[in-house]
Amino acid sequence: MAAVAALRLLRAQVPGWLRRGPCAPLPAGFCTRGSASAAGRQEPEPRPTVARQRDGISRSSQLRSRPGGKASVALRAGNIILSNPKKRNALSLAMLTSLQNDILHEADSKDLRVIIISAEGPVFSSGHDLKELTEEQGRDHHAEIFQTCSEVMMLIRNHPVPVIAMVNGLATAAGCQLVASCDIAIASDKSSFATPGVNIGLFCSTPAVALGRAVPRKVALEMLFTGEPISAQEALLHGLLSKVVPEEQLEEETMRIARKIASLSRPVVSLGKATFYKQLPQDLRTAYYLASQTMVDNLGLQDGQEGIKAFIEKRKPVWSP
Amino acid sequence: MAAVAALRLLRAQVPGWLRRGPCAPLPAGFCTRGSASAAGRQEPEPRPTVARQRDGISRSSQLRSRPGGKASVALRAGNIILSNPKKRNALSLAMLTSLQNDILHEADSKDLRVIIISAEGPVFSSGHDLKELTEEQGRDHHAEIFQTCSEVMMLIRNHPVPVIAMVNGLATAAGCQLVASCDIAIASDKSSFATPGVNIGLFCSTPAVALGRAVPRKVALEMLFTGEPISAQEALLHGLLSKVVPEEQLEEETMRIARKIASLSRPVVSLGKATFYKQLPQDLRTAYYLASQTMVDNLGLQDGQEGIKAFIEKRKPVWSP
Amino acid sequence: MAAVAALRLLRAQVPGWLRRGPCAPLPAGFCTRGSASAAGRQEPEPRPTVARQRDGISRSSQLRSRPGGKASVALRAGNIILSNPKKRNALSLAMLTSLQNDILHEADSKDLRVIIISAEGPVFSSGHDLKELTEEQGRDHHAEIFQTCSEVMMLIRNHPVPVIAMVNGLATAAGCQLVASCDIAIASDKSSFATPGVNIGLFCSTPAVALGRAVPRKVALEMLFTGEPISAQEALLHGLLSKVVPEEQLEEETMRIARKIASLSRPVVSLGKATFYKQLPQDLRTAYYLASQTMVDNLGLQDGQEGIKAFIEKRKPVWSP
Repeated sequence: MAAVAALRLLRAQVPGWLRRGPCAPLPAGFCTRGSASAAGRQEPEPRPTVARQRDGISRSSQLRSRPGGKASVALRAGNIILSNPKKRNALSLAMLTSLQNDILHEADSKDLRVIIISAEGPVFSSGHDLKELTEEQGRDHHAEIFQTCSEVMMLIRNHPVPVIAMVNGLATAAGCQLVASCDIAIASDKSSFATPGVNIGLFCSTPAVALGRAVPRKVALEMLFTGEPISAQEALLHGLLSKVVPEEQLEEETMRIARKIASLSRPVVSLGKATFYKQLPQDLRTAYYLASQTMVDNLGLQDGQEGIKAFIEKRKPVWSP
Repeated sequence: MAAVAALRLLRAQVPGWLRRGPCAPLPAGFCTRGSASAAGRQEPEPRPTVARQRDGISRSSQLRSRPGGKASVALRAGNIILSNPKKRNALSLAMLTSLQNDILHEADSKDLRVIIISAEGPVFSSGHDLKELTEEQGRDHHAEIFQTCSEVMMLIRNHPVPVIAMVNGLATAAGCQLVASCDIAIASDKSSFATPGVNIGLFCSTPAVALGRAVPRKVALEMLFTGEPISAQEALLHGLLSKVVPEEQLEEETMRIARKIASLSRPVVSLGKATFYKQLPQDLRTAYYLASQTMVDNLGLQDGQEGIKAFIEKRKPVWSP
Repeated sequence: MAAVAALRLLRAQVPGWLRRGPCAPLPAGFCTRGSASAAGRQEPEPRPTVARQRDGISRSSQLRSRPGGKASVALRAGNIILSNPKKRNALSLAMLTSLQNDILHEADSKDLRVIIISAEGPVFSSGHDLKELTEEQGRDHHAEIFQTCSEVMMLIRNHPVPVIAMVNGLATAAGCQLVASCDIAIASDKSSFATPGVNIGLFCSTPAVALGRAVPRKVALEMLFTGEPISAQEALLHGLLSKVVPEEQLEEETMRIARKIASLSRPVVSLGKATFYKQLPQDLRTAYYLASQTMVDNLGLQDGQEGIKAFIEKRKPVWSP
């Protein structure tokens, strides 16, 4: 609870102009890169995503008390916030590009341990911006939008650190796809999920790629053919979510999981994540071959041996910086 | 409720001889084709399936009030009824052929929007007719039966419109396979599901193809190795069903979903269904490539642009006839 | 209940030295083979697994009363017990080798119908023995351990009879993998499951092969990234288990299922199990082709025709001895 209070305090200290305004470097922070902000500068629109460091994680981290030195760099959970609630956080091309840049930003930094994607307002995301999908925009523009969207979804899977969706509200179409594409998804019990494209004559075929890999076929097809929403509880039951909590506990529970992941060895987590997605579509023999090699490689990592030594010596492990 | 009452009235008006008798054209209806009825004529048996139009859908459809003309053709939900309750709706070769013909019938008609498969009596279907699987029938006859059955199951998946199973009772062996093979399955809470072939020395290997793709492996194997049934609630929990409702709401809920689908654009739904099954077994990159192409193609459809225009103009879309 | 009482009586009669001591033939029993016991002899350690016949099954089996002769050989459920509770039933290389031998033992005997894997003590298994994974043991030794472990898991799948995990307690890491790899898993409600390797810097990549094929991706990744346990109820909900029962009913329910399987035709069950795993990763058309062939072959088996004849003649089938 203390950590949550600290987070609320932190949030209160973030000036309003920063959360909605043009890109500015957060102190020791996490920020949308140039290309997205350049796109932002051409339009009077606010920046579609805001990325910031969740200091709460480093403060409570046991890693600060490493023997032999104080932590010179705070560990980070990158929190990317979809910040266009007036447009129901539509995944416009600008939003997708900004999201992509934020996800890529500092991806290779050893200090980044986990990414949280959340949203401002009552709608997590309503999916594509339909104004970008009219006949006037043309077939090539349409193709670019879906390609960018697919790249964002695959980037989440290919990213070296776990990506958590923190959902408090409605996630529809490509918004539902975004939730389905994250590694972990925590939602408040007031959240709901739908793929309603069929109602406007645009079947949610790309969202169905992620949805169809997350929930049973019978559930996916009822959602796709009727456009009707499912509740957070149903989404949990069917595998779309990792966990459902009351709204007032959403941030606390998400940060608890993020802190846990941030306290672990990044090389170990990254190797494990990559291998998980690599072996999953293989036949069983190939999967075991790949995963067994990874186990041996993992044991060869400095953190792999440190962890086992610490366990045998009944002490806490000290991960590589 | 009014729609359900209308349906009950409609059903009361269908003469008894029609529902069980030899093939006769339903008024403006949906009917088993020649080949199945020819097979029927050789035997004194009643026709194994009855196909009829669910007028309830067209009556309540908003599409009747299209501007610029009245609907000259009623939209249709084809309702195929397994109609051999005395034989527990066994999937005899005649039943399978009749079912196949009914599913194929008018498949290309732009007026057909959804198919509902239901059954007369307390057993949805008990699976293959064991009298057709004796030694005397011979290996070639056995092979023909399983090939026909597999074709029916794949036909459901390849059909241009969604196929809904409406289950009120026991579905076993190939009957359970039929439920698992439909796109959507709605069941009453008194329904149950089993693959009991192992009890009579015939492992449910073909039903396991559909079952193993619908429920987790641990659930499928316990069903297959013990032959014991699972309840409708368990079937929902594990992904075999889309929805479970009290028996008295089964028809109402199924028709609600069918009406919803019937109110949508057939070309959009067909494209979406075909792409869903095409992308699902692919790796993620290929799946997104296929689905992104479909999104662009969908936007190129007349109904794709109409839907988006209507949304932007805040009016109901008018689909192509 | 009578059967359970008989089992308890049986267990009470098994001398203590046999359950933990070096390999000795059980009367008409099931026993670890030479190689494992040889390994056992080199060390003062007790044998890591104990294998014994579950006579309860043959006693209650209706097959004893076959017309035309008394059953000369008792039918068997092989019960393999992880028997190193002081080391939390760690899957050391000796334990893995012993388990492998016990699973292989009499695999081709027509009298063996089902295998139950259970454990002594409050921990089903804690996974690999970390002392075998230190730097000093070397990369080749590590590789041998993971290869042996993978072979055990694939052996369960390739075994001709169903393998049931009976879990009463905590199953972690490779212990969780073992549960996920069995065909059926029955657990007491006090059981729990985790893949906590990440806590000690060794991501559970090989357990993830089995876990990722048993539960939805979102559930698997939360378990793998946080190391936190899920309850038996959650494991059931997400597909890791076939059934959860109160602790006092665990043995009764497991034996009920084992007796059911033991009463069936071994050739039919074996053919069905092999085909299930063969067709599951195939595309739908190939899967139906393989499974249809199996159905025809199954009907060609003596027990296939006996089962159908018995059903038509309304009598109990008499399976081939």
